[in-house]
Amino acid sequence: MAQQWNQQPEMTDQTGIRPGEQAVALPEKFDAGLYYIGCIRTPWQRREDCPKNSRQSRELGAVCTIELDPRYAAGLKDVETSTHLLILYWMDQARRDLVLQAPRHYDAQRGTFALRSPVRPNPIAASVVQLIKVEGTKLSVIGLDCIDGTPLIDIKPYFASTDAVPEASVGWHAERKK
Amino acid sequence: MAQQWNQQPEMTDQTGIRPGEQAVALPEKFDAGLYYIGCIRTPWQRREDCPKNSRQSRELGAVCTIELDPRYAAGLKDVETSTHLLILYWMDQARRDLVLQAPRHYDAQRGTFALRSPVRPNPIAASVVQLIKVEGTKLSVIGLDCIDGTPLIDIKPYFASTDAVPEASVGWHAERKK
Repeated sequence: MAQQWNQQPEMTDQTGIRPGEQAVALPEKFDAGLYYIGCIRTPWQRREDCPKNSRQSRELGAVCTIELDPRYAAGLKDVETSTHLLILYWMDQARRDLVLQAPRHYDAQRGTFALRSPVRPNPIAASVVQLIKVEGTKLSVIGLDCIDGTPLIDIKPYFASTDAVPEASVGWHAERKK
Repeated sequence: MAQQWNQQPEMTDQTGIRPGEQAVALPEKFDAGLYYIGCIRTPWQRREDCPKNSRQSRELGAVCTIELDPRYAAGLKDVETSTHLLILYWMDQARRDLVLQAPRHYDAQRGTFALRSPVRPNPIAASVVQLIKVEGTKLSVIGLDCIDGTPLIDIKPYFASTDAVPEASVGWHAERKK
């Protein structure tokens, strides 16, 4: 279902939708274009091998490698002084038209914007990772949960002062665990 | 300098670059397309009126409104149970080709990936906001620092278990404040 920037988006496609899920017709044109600025190397070749989320990945201690396109190498200056980074990457295998989803491991349908599922209008994932080392244009990090070869979109320094909200909660998720 | 998805990226442009800054030639084509899924309404009409970052915005207590395209309305189911959200938006006025930057308020050049500047190959900003209320497709939030009319890219629930790392630090920034 991945759409390229130069293709017309597909119309609403009701195939592969589980009970309780809902798709919408996407706009006819894209509004902006993205560059893949590198590639993420992980030990996981298939979706079903990946950790469930970045916490599980952190618990595994799996070290992944972010390979930045050498074109942008100078942009890494000072990155090694950060203990953690916010990584944006592109879930290029996800369909983009579902607004209600019924994940297999959850008990009910949820709105797309209440989930961290890769299935969303813009399939950008955001993960906080621990930076282990920088060697040239390769960053070793802990905390990614995507498949090998996932396109990289951005690397940002993680500022605890603005990015860390330890008291935050997601009601539907907390309720579910009770 | 904003580039549309259907335009060819411009070649390296050395105009408007400050001493110590460095631009690179961007790829000739985009790799993926984004939809603007809504619009962010803030009290700030000009760049120079915006808070310096989301912490400053939080301290001001400025309430901003995220207006989601009604096409995606069903995707908001359960969003109101989150206390905080991770908002992705598109800094459409930023140039994309700088890898080294010399921000006016800093003392040295920094790599783009060590900064939260809107100037980056993919000008996506990521901000953690406090959710005040949801009314239809409008979300009232605290913690945004962008200009009025900024295009919305994504809304995600903020999970403290994976997104909050209070002990994280950015060395170059901490050093600077000493």
